Amino acid sequence: MGKKIGFIGLGVMGGAMAEHLLEAGFELTVYNRTKKKAETLLSKGAKWADTPAAAAKNSDVVITMVGYPEDVEEVYLGKDGILEAKTGGYVIDMTTSSPKLAKKIYDAAAKKGIASVDAPVSGGDIGARNATLVIMVGGDEKAFHALAPIFNALGKTVRYFGAAGSGQYTKMANQIAIAAGMLGVAESLSYAKKAGLNPEAVLETISGGAAGSWSLSNLGPRMLKGDTAPGFYIKHFIKDMRIAIESAEEMHLELPGLKLAKRLYDELSARGMEDCGTQTIYQWYAK
Amino acid sequence: MGKKIGFIGLGVMGGAMAEHLLEAGFELTVYNRTKKKAETLLSKGAKWADTPAAAAKNSDVVITMVGYPEDVEEVYLGKDGILEAKTGGYVIDMTTSSPKLAKKIYDAAAKKGIASVDAPVSGGDIGARNATLVIMVGGDEKAFHALAPIFNALGKTVRYFGAAGSGQYTKMANQIAIAAGMLGVAESLSYAKKAGLNPEAVLETISGGAAGSWSLSNLGPRMLKGDTAPGFYIKHFIKDMRIAIESAEEMHLELPGLKLAKRLYDELSARGMEDCGTQTIYQWYAK
Repeated sequence: MGKKIGFIGLGVMGGAMAEHLLEAGFELTVYNRTKKKAETLLSKGAKWADTPAAAAKNSDVVITMVGYPEDVEEVYLGKDGILEAKTGGYVIDMTTSSPKLAKKIYDAAAKKGIASVDAPVSGGDIGARNATLVIMVGGDEKAFHALAPIFNALGKTVRYFGAAGSGQYTKMANQIAIAAGMLGVAESLSYAKKAGLNPEAVLETISGGAAGSWSLSNLGPRMLKGDTAPGFYIKHFIKDMRIAIESAEEMHLELPGLKLAKRLYDELSARGMEDCGTQTIYQWYAK
Repeated sequence: MGKKIGFIGLGVMGGAMAEHLLEAGFELTVYNRTKKKAETLLSKGAKWADTPAAAAKNSDVVITMVGYPEDVEEVYLGKDGILEAKTGGYVIDMTTSSPKLAKKIYDAAAKKGIASVDAPVSGGDIGARNATLVIMVGGDEKAFHALAPIFNALGKTVRYFGAAGSGQYTKMANQIAIAAGMLGVAESLSYAKKAGLNPEAVLETISGGAAGSWSLSNLGPRMLKGDTAPGFYIKHFIKDMRIAIESAEEMHLELPGLKLAKRLYDELSARGMEDCGTQTIYQWYAK
């Protein structure tokens, strides 16, 4: 693996990750739909590319961290896309995206001698900033090992889960556990409040036992404060749940808890809350 | 508060709790539907009573730890029940039961000069054996303080939440958080398995992050092993969810995650799994 990385997608996550790679000594050529978001990186020595293809052309490794599966597909397989320009080397899609699309990209990349891995992350913007992401990898196993210096610059836990799509499947398993779990937290605290209890006292008491969860301890207090600021955006969670539902349907697996969570979040989104944090589900119950 | 306790209900939980009270120096008169379950306690010095009324008659405090709200109602308000025999002193219902019934008992007890508290627990049979229960108390606040020596002999966290029914409301908030959360855990692991991943590796990876929960860490491994042994019985969880749904409806609070969980557990129960542990929800997805 060489030192030249093409990095596509400089949002809150991608921007922080690209900085870590610069600091680790990689040479970055970056592309983003909005050029403004690249300014900090350019001032630190990254080069600019006008298209994904241009970012990919002379890079040993291309990393993508974009928004929706549609964006991933366009960036890899569309006009001026990565696979139009690149032969050999590696591609890493770190976007949370569809397992099926990961397989499609893997196959298309293989035809051009490119080793592809899907490597979505968990840990959010804080994990990206602190390089403490959990990175869930699927695809070419040799590539997984070869790319270790990149993964280690970005995350604290890096694990290989199997063939193309396995990183995405693992990320989906993570989101699925969160989805119904968020309903449990919001329902519990809504009930406590409506029953006239002190909901903070209830939260404190139940979070140490069998009802305990990351969501209860970390998002429960924000629910009770009415803090809707996004740690994780409702619109992104809806995207993830959509992907998870589609892929579960491909497997003929029925996941009613996930579907219910998606339905409630869709309702919040329709009420204009798509840019709020996922804890805002609490407001569904306060309606 | 005197030293004489009438203890009614000697199941797995009640039996262990009664032993701790004997060890703490209280004098126990016990009643249970099946006398056989009292044998150990009788051999350690507890006295036997043939009816709840007889157990209550000369006791300073009566503690009940029975099965369903119907049992609680009968034991307190039925023929040969506690309130038929007792005047003054204290009653503590530690059964997980209906908040509405707790208020009804509180009122009926008050008419006989009895201070009533509802004090359901969490922590399961292990918590009962090790005297590490969490005890959630509602009802008479002076009584809560007066009864501290009893609570401290049984649990490690004892907290007062407000008027009659508040202990039950708090316990319900606990069960509500667990209910939808269990679906999240079971759906996540079913999905991981069906996707061809190593579900143990997925569990290990996601349990440290935002998907983490007590249920995932403690019941997830049992799901994957096919271990259906009850830590907490499906039939008891269904009872709790029924109470929670009824009380949410009294408040005009809609809790779709809880209702969904109850529906899936009802289906398992109909398939003969009511005596399995709650982790057996995993099998709903494997159908």
